Amino acid sequence: MTLAHAYAAQSATTPLAPFTFQRRFLTARDVAIDILYCGVCHSDLHTARSEWGPSVYPCVPGHEIVGRVSEVGTDVSKFKVGDFVGVGCMVDSCQHCQPCAQGLEQYCDNGMTGTYNSQEQVSRANTLGGYSDHIVVSEKFVLRISHHEKALAAVAPLLCAGITTYSPLRYWKVGPGQKVGIVGLGGLGHMGIKIATALGAHVVLFTTSPSKTEDALRLGAKEVVVSENADALAIHRNSFDFILDTVAVAHNLDPLVTLLKMNGTLVLVGIPSSPNPSPGAFGLISKRRSISGSMIGGIAETQEMLDFCAKHNIVSDVEIIKMPQINEAYERMLKSDVKYRFVIDMATVR
Amino acid sequence: MTLAHAYAAQSATTPLAPFTFQRRFLTARDVAIDILYCGVCHSDLHTARSEWGPSVYPCVPGHEIVGRVSEVGTDVSKFKVGDFVGVGCMVDSCQHCQPCAQGLEQYCDNGMTGTYNSQEQVSRANTLGGYSDHIVVSEKFVLRISHHEKALAAVAPLLCAGITTYSPLRYWKVGPGQKVGIVGLGGLGHMGIKIATALGAHVVLFTTSPSKTEDALRLGAKEVVVSENADALAIHRNSFDFILDTVAVAHNLDPLVTLLKMNGTLVLVGIPSSPNPSPGAFGLISKRRSISGSMIGGIAETQEMLDFCAKHNIVSDVEIIKMPQINEAYERMLKSDVKYRFVIDMATVR
Repeated sequence: MTLAHAYAAQSATTPLAPFTFQRRFLTARDVAIDILYCGVCHSDLHTARSEWGPSVYPCVPGHEIVGRVSEVGTDVSKFKVGDFVGVGCMVDSCQHCQPCAQGLEQYCDNGMTGTYNSQEQVSRANTLGGYSDHIVVSEKFVLRISHHEKALAAVAPLLCAGITTYSPLRYWKVGPGQKVGIVGLGGLGHMGIKIATALGAHVVLFTTSPSKTEDALRLGAKEVVVSENADALAIHRNSFDFILDTVAVAHNLDPLVTLLKMNGTLVLVGIPSSPNPSPGAFGLISKRRSISGSMIGGIAETQEMLDFCAKHNIVSDVEIIKMPQINEAYERMLKSDVKYRFVIDMATVR
Repeated sequence: MTLAHAYAAQSATTPLAPFTFQRRFLTARDVAIDILYCGVCHSDLHTARSEWGPSVYPCVPGHEIVGRVSEVGTDVSKFKVGDFVGVGCMVDSCQHCQPCAQGLEQYCDNGMTGTYNSQEQVSRANTLGGYSDHIVVSEKFVLRISHHEKALAAVAPLLCAGITTYSPLRYWKVGPGQKVGIVGLGGLGHMGIKIATALGAHVVLFTTSPSKTEDALRLGAKEVVVSENADALAIHRNSFDFILDTVAVAHNLDPLVTLLKMNGTLVLVGIPSSPNPSPGAFGLISKRRSISGSMIGGIAETQEMLDFCAKHNIVSDVEIIKMPQINEAYERMLKSDVKYRFVIDMATVR
């Protein structure tokens, strides 16, 4: 076992603070990774504070991990020492259910093993995440990074925010000639604009903040619609092939549903703490529209996303922070005061 | 013009009563039909009573029409005098939007022309439906019936209840090897069981009435689950490919959503007068599930459905009534006291 230096919450109400613990022994199929950067996802905060049900403490968040391979198990074939790699929201799954067999480990019928606050498949030990100097992960859940070394900090958020937006855009076959809406401009939304644009779609951002217009256009959106402007919405009625809704606070879905063409889909990727108001059946029935949900992506698709982003020079817009700034970063995140993702420089953890 | 003998509501609060009016002149592309039978759909009652917004009066409901061709326009090529034909929920559409071009006239961007309480495309005259002795309809919206003549009364409900269930079952590719839920055993639900079974699916009925078990099994369901039995529902978690929800009163969708497998879809075909409680985002996101809606079907698909039903000997279970019994039938329908569709013998309209 190896001693890991990390930051952990010791309870739902205590700030994150330095913490050390033992990482597991390297098995034949494991990869040990020195963590260089870890993105800060809103899920980290929810979990550290037990906002999604009681968490296990100490809790070490972090699932947007980029690092360098420091050691490999004897059966590892895909990675060697020195490789730049990533780890996202999952570190294991049952590997034998139907979703796992299809490479959709995130939908594992027996429950995927999250990178933190989850149970390892065999030992049932609590997993501890990326706010730490190193991690040991089964080869199958390690991703290859082909971006330039200088971009590594900005690559980290692709492991959650990137794949969370890429997967539904791909599953619902977004591409050239399509009109696609992205709802909300935050960590997820800004990746959604970049990826949908790279896929060739005509991208329209929906936001409640007119002040975000300039940024959205810079990121690739062709149009920006202020969601509360009923006239602006009316112009776009029945015109969208697909809408990706990244907003994680309760909001009315009906105005978005009416923007979809026949057979169009509104996909939710955010889970609000109180439910969205009930969408009316008529909006769905009258044009065979759908409201769907999507959660991160499988390992194979995450690799595809990383390769796609490397090819298209897509990274996240990030603000790099030091590990001790994490509590302050959480407070700023709650005020949406970040463009668009904090990333921790893990050299600052000790 | 020809004098039609019908039953109409003269206001939202008056019972249906005898009424005569002039049908339009036969144009070159029109088919005149002597109506033999007309099914009684819940929409008829909603519209007669202005329950879906103010209706135009006098209002002649009826959109499950079966009859015999009495005259054809000079350009009509598909039908000849004496043919048995059907007319469903639509008698026209714009014919130039994208949905119309795809044969999905029910989703016409400019609004389909309903068989009653709707506006004709050019004249904007109010349409008057099938509770009448004859009707004049554009050839394009007339369906051929190949069932045996003796089955004609029981064919009438296929024109609405049949296509409303057939279309989503086909669009979402229900077939052999699939586990399919039908929610609610009424006019729509009983057709859903028959058609999904004929498509080769393993059909499970969800009902709040244990007393419907025997009938559901007779109609083809392999299992019946009482919706309020949480234990019974739990057994089926994550196991359905597709669920067709025919219930038109507000109900909680979440227990149904959790029954779906990864990528599964819950399709609503009923519009409750008050909204369903809000479905949680987590149920959708955690398995990439969808909630969708579907409305009747296009003309080509309605013909396909009629041919499919003729081939598989599928008709509706009906109770034939006389036209003067319509108000009593409405009251019984409100109490779900019908197995499973009233059909008016139109010889009794005069």
